[in-house]
Amino acid sequence: MKTLPGFRDFYPEEQARRRALFERWAEVARAHGFAEIDAPTVEPLDLYRKKSGDELVGQLFSFTDRGEREIALRPELTPSAARMVAAKHRELRRPIRWFSLGSFFRLERPQRGRSREFCQFNCDLFGISGAAADAEMVGLLIALLRAVGLGPQDFAVRLSDRSVWNQFVAGAALPEESTVALLQAVDKLGREPAERTDARLLAAGFEPERVRSFIDEPCENDPIFSDLRRELDQRRLTEFITFDRSVVRGLAYYTGVVFEAFDRKGELRAIAGGGRYDGLVAKISDGAADLPAAGFAIGDVVIMELIEAKALPAASIQRRADQLLAGQVFLVIADEIARPHALRIASDLRAAGVRTDFALGSEKVTRQFQAAEQAGCSLAVVFGAEWPRVKIKLMATREEIEIEASALYERIGDLLKIRRLENPNLQ
Amino acid sequence: MKTLPGFRDFYPEEQARRRALFERWAEVARAHGFAEIDAPTVEPLDLYRKKSGDELVGQLFSFTDRGEREIALRPELTPSAARMVAAKHRELRRPIRWFSLGSFFRLERPQRGRSREFCQFNCDLFGISGAAADAEMVGLLIALLRAVGLGPQDFAVRLSDRSVWNQFVAGAALPEESTVALLQAVDKLGREPAERTDARLLAAGFEPERVRSFIDEPCENDPIFSDLRRELDQRRLTEFITFDRSVVRGLAYYTGVVFEAFDRKGELRAIAGGGRYDGLVAKISDGAADLPAAGFAIGDVVIMELIEAKALPAASIQRRADQLLAGQVFLVIADEIARPHALRIASDLRAAGVRTDFALGSEKVTRQFQAAEQAGCSLAVVFGAEWPRVKIKLMATREEIEIEASALYERIGDLLKIRRLENPNLQ
Repeated sequence: MKTLPGFRDFYPEEQARRRALFERWAEVARAHGFAEIDAPTVEPLDLYRKKSGDELVGQLFSFTDRGEREIALRPELTPSAARMVAAKHRELRRPIRWFSLGSFFRLERPQRGRSREFCQFNCDLFGISGAAADAEMVGLLIALLRAVGLGPQDFAVRLSDRSVWNQFVAGAALPEESTVALLQAVDKLGREPAERTDARLLAAGFEPERVRSFIDEPCENDPIFSDLRRELDQRRLTEFITFDRSVVRGLAYYTGVVFEAFDRKGELRAIAGGGRYDGLVAKISDGAADLPAAGFAIGDVVIMELIEAKALPAASIQRRADQLLAGQVFLVIADEIARPHALRIASDLRAAGVRTDFALGSEKVTRQFQAAEQAGCSLAVVFGAEWPRVKIKLMATREEIEIEASALYERIGDLLKIRRLENPNLQ
Repeated sequence: MKTLPGFRDFYPEEQARRRALFERWAEVARAHGFAEIDAPTVEPLDLYRKKSGDELVGQLFSFTDRGEREIALRPELTPSAARMVAAKHRELRRPIRWFSLGSFFRLERPQRGRSREFCQFNCDLFGISGAAADAEMVGLLIALLRAVGLGPQDFAVRLSDRSVWNQFVAGAALPEESTVALLQAVDKLGREPAERTDARLLAAGFEPERVRSFIDEPCENDPIFSDLRRELDQRRLTEFITFDRSVVRGLAYYTGVVFEAFDRKGELRAIAGGGRYDGLVAKISDGAADLPAAGFAIGDVVIMELIEAKALPAASIQRRADQLLAGQVFLVIADEIARPHALRIASDLRAAGVRTDFALGSEKVTRQFQAAEQAGCSLAVVFGAEWPRVKIKLMATREEIEIEASALYERIGDLLKIRRLENPNLQ
């Protein structure tokens, strides 16, 4: 019995790193004024059809339920978030700033940096447009990556605006499908053979050389970017930014600024991506609500590769992960006669939030000390025939302190540097 | 556009309560020595078929993927956790204590206390059997419910052992299907019409009256429970326990102790349920690994109803939820000339973890103060023409302090009582 291909089990050490990462990201998002939401894992297929773009829809896990509804495992959050905004847009305080963390699904060939189920951290800002709002989102993305220890030498945000291409095609009197095909071809640049891209461009009515040289032109002084550049400058984010016309993003709904974060070495897939999608709320609500919006998502797969590749910068994540896994106090039962006392004290310590462990059955004292060490406990308390006196052993120094059991609770609090050991069940 | 029936959107206030609940539960599980794991949301259908029992399998969201595999949205965690243990049973330190939090799916009629997608907090203990291990699990369940503010007046754990029924049928020389049918009938007692249960029992070869009177007999002194009773006594858990032979649990794989937590008023569905399932790891691994196991799950739906019904006991969850949502500092931009300074300081404060907010566009000062209040900020800092001097306003008392901007960072740290305001990006 194995997982399905492209699905993953997470054992405690890897899960602790993910938890540390997710906790940190939630803190950073809250510091930026974002509040957490959650949405269903399964949605009507129609939520994605026509909205997300062909690439996503072709990779959907979709099926028909017993009520003959076509449903899909969500491939992304944005359409659900847009629906939530539309449903309560009158009551929600603006701007609406939401983040969420959840599982998403794409039925694509499992490969490095891609799995069929992955976690995404999503951030969206509704109800405000303009360069300041775009800069807020780019700034939040950069803050999230810096918070895990990555710096300007590790990643950059490639940034563009779909209007760049609207200007490019302006006056060419081509049908709208041509622009869509152009964007799709540009999105696939460097990810598919050049001949393939060229064929796409020619079919859409564009000269490949003209497209390539437009992309290669320096564009950071393009007036399209001037407001955003100023906003990013004021936030001191310039060193993280590369203006790059080849960035268009694959999803159909983007209308303005688009961006993606990638590793500077260029070895990995995009770490994150997003942009402005001003029409989506109106489209999903059939015009009942119409709010400008911008957002992005960071997946867990590429960022974890990046964290694991650079042990040092991600030290704070690993430190927190170690902390999540470590025990604190091990109760060594040297004489079974004292077990009931140890059990009672274990309950009290645990109720006070102290990570407390003990052997569930009778075991040799040396084995119990071994278990204390393996669990990462800093203190062992020995319960034996000398009850009501107990011995505290500091695992690091092997120092021993013998005290009355009645003083144990306070002493453990001191030794673990817990400011006030509170047991809500004993009050 | 709506969610599918039985699926839910979670807006910030409700999500904050859930997050506070999940955080608290994770702390309690860690205090008991449990480490977090995660497993796929989608699994091969065969993982549940024959293992989980007919009731669950009949409610599966299952479908055939493009590789013609039969797959299912997970209805429960236990089979996945058993597979994970089997796959690494040689490397994992025993006893293996795991918890996890995730979404699960059942295709049943949406109704009060039941949704088609729900969150479950799962705890499992592998590698040890016996009353001490069972008591650990029951004790952890009780600690998780107490941690959200529920006491012995709010809930009880109804406890039994499947062996009770093995003894009941012993000597009756009935086929094994009869025992299975008996357990299913007992599990449905009180949840389906009495005539239906009676018909099931008669069909299985049991006299309904004999079964009912067996259930009604006081059973707490049954020798089957004596070791467990002693272990629970030593943990001072007796006041939470009711021994009750009618508890058998619907899942097929339980082999020993079974239990469920329910509200004392009896108004809601079971809050949590679990038991011992010693054969499952061997069954799932075709005998490659064979570890005893016990576990339980708490869903989020019933517990949230219980929390919301009793505002007072759950005060700590609500307090934490409020904290998760509240802002701390609002930067009021009284003169646009000072905006760049405010932006820079916002970046610094946010990088230091301070929840900092400001208006993204030019707005009247009174509106900005309003926004500060609505966001729950305790401080407003006014940036105006007097830069580099700024005013801090304490939102609660309306007190104002004018200081040099260079001292702002430290002053905010003092006022928010943050021991040390650290900005990792500035070092």
